[in-house]
Amino acid sequence: MLGEDLRPTEATEGRETVIERMLDSLRKAVRSANVTIEDLNGLGVAAPGPVDWQTGHVLEPPNLPGWGDVPLGSILSEQLGLPVVLENDANAAALGEYVSGAGRGAKALIYITISTGIGGGLVFDGRLYRGVSGAAGEVGHMIIRPEGPLCGCGRHGCLEALSSGSAIGREGATALANGRAPLLRRQIDDSGQPVSALLVARAAGEGDEDAQQILHEAGVSLGIGLGNLVNLLNPDRIVIGGGAAHIGAPLLEPAEAVMRRNAFPGAAARVSLRSAELEYAAIHGVASLVADSDFRVQG
Amino acid sequence: MLGEDLRPTEATEGRETVIERMLDSLRKAVRSANVTIEDLNGLGVAAPGPVDWQTGHVLEPPNLPGWGDVPLGSILSEQLGLPVVLENDANAAALGEYVSGAGRGAKALIYITISTGIGGGLVFDGRLYRGVSGAAGEVGHMIIRPEGPLCGCGRHGCLEALSSGSAIGREGATALANGRAPLLRRQIDDSGQPVSALLVARAAGEGDEDAQQILHEAGVSLGIGLGNLVNLLNPDRIVIGGGAAHIGAPLLEPAEAVMRRNAFPGAAARVSLRSAELEYAAIHGVASLVADSDFRVQG
Repeated sequence: MLGEDLRPTEATEGRETVIERMLDSLRKAVRSANVTIEDLNGLGVAAPGPVDWQTGHVLEPPNLPGWGDVPLGSILSEQLGLPVVLENDANAAALGEYVSGAGRGAKALIYITISTGIGGGLVFDGRLYRGVSGAAGEVGHMIIRPEGPLCGCGRHGCLEALSSGSAIGREGATALANGRAPLLRRQIDDSGQPVSALLVARAAGEGDEDAQQILHEAGVSLGIGLGNLVNLLNPDRIVIGGGAAHIGAPLLEPAEAVMRRNAFPGAAARVSLRSAELEYAAIHGVASLVADSDFRVQG
Repeated sequence: MLGEDLRPTEATEGRETVIERMLDSLRKAVRSANVTIEDLNGLGVAAPGPVDWQTGHVLEPPNLPGWGDVPLGSILSEQLGLPVVLENDANAAALGEYVSGAGRGAKALIYITISTGIGGGLVFDGRLYRGVSGAAGEVGHMIIRPEGPLCGCGRHGCLEALSSGSAIGREGATALANGRAPLLRRQIDDSGQPVSALLVARAAGEGDEDAQQILHEAGVSLGIGLGNLVNLLNPDRIVIGGGAAHIGAPLLEPAEAVMRRNAFPGAAARVSLRSAELEYAAIHGVASLVADSDFRVQG
């Protein structure tokens, strides 16, 4: 009963083309599962950036330039004759890890995705905590060093500006510009790739002390953010996903150590930190929204 | 049907004496309401510092030295023959402001009390959010300046170390030691009182620019913390209580400006910041816990 079809967004081709491609992809996935559109209970969509899950609108997603405010839920619903639920990708992934991944059984789950940026989602008592307008969970824009580096959001010292893949890459580039990180230099020269968190991690793995220091500092900042979250929300589980999470111990060990040192003992004792388990967590998440008795028809 | 009796804790007299005084006070309050203990549905207790609300224990409260882990709920319950519910004072005050004060009608309420320290409580969808072990809501120990001043908790740069009454008093003392804050100096000399947030606020009100700067910086740090909370929890209401909140605009105006600048526009547009309304918010809060159908007998 499972089918799949994977395609790049190719956002530059514009909104009509992208939506048409989504529909094509859906039809192909449905065929590959040997069912028809009419067999489906509904459609769950995980979209990047801010969405209004109550109206099914995507709201000027930064990764989909020129889209503006698009009633994606009702567009898809009309085309398919199906109820559609839309959720932002970090919330959807949080719910997916809760339902089927590393967040199973958690009473208070904080999911954090670390890739180019840092996003997050909160699942309390088995339900997404969305806040009053669906904007909750922006762990990446917790400011912990107000005089720190500039963030993509325009503020300084957000967690995203300190511990994300972009932040690690930026620090790698700075080290290179200062004539440091010799093994990172060799990685760049050998691979022909631009500096990235992945190459910093590779250089660190080969013993580059500057690269190791960059990961350590990113981990310490991450740990300050995690400690703040533990003191505020007293969760029993924190799940870390996203590409940069694949760096693993060099980032997450200092993060966990700082988190446990900074959080109050009673709260620290109750939280476990785990890596995400699912490749497509957001799809599990929106599927569970469609399956939910609380599922609301949008559009 | 309302009665009251107010007494100081006098914690140094030890736990038996304090508990005996609580019982005396309760009996007098009940008499003043022209009812008897037997007429009561239950007893709600707001206690300082960490409590385990599920077992009714107070857990080594810092303000009650030598108490250790005390089953206060069951002690009171046995003495009175009543069900007892125990909650920490910041959570209780959050609930009180939600039920009867400045948090009425909020879907997602963050309550922050600023006095000697900074505490807080979260009320989502009409219920206290306690986390997995009742430790949630520690907004005062969100670290926002890791290289900042030492906090009473042993870490550096917690909100409490930057924006609390103690922090403001400490900065006032530093200014005096450096020969600055001339009108604060006169406040100290005239009043014979030690430096405090109240005196810093008075000096600022008289035009002392150093005192004004101290309040402004405490407000900016508070605003960074508030912005972080808005991005994380997307609340519709933040209520500020506690003694230092009486400082008012010189502290809260820069705080609100920074909060609105730092939070994402969609979340910032939905939140209002208000001063607490109730003199005894925590009492309203525990009373509502006793009245709650969900009320659990402890002890």
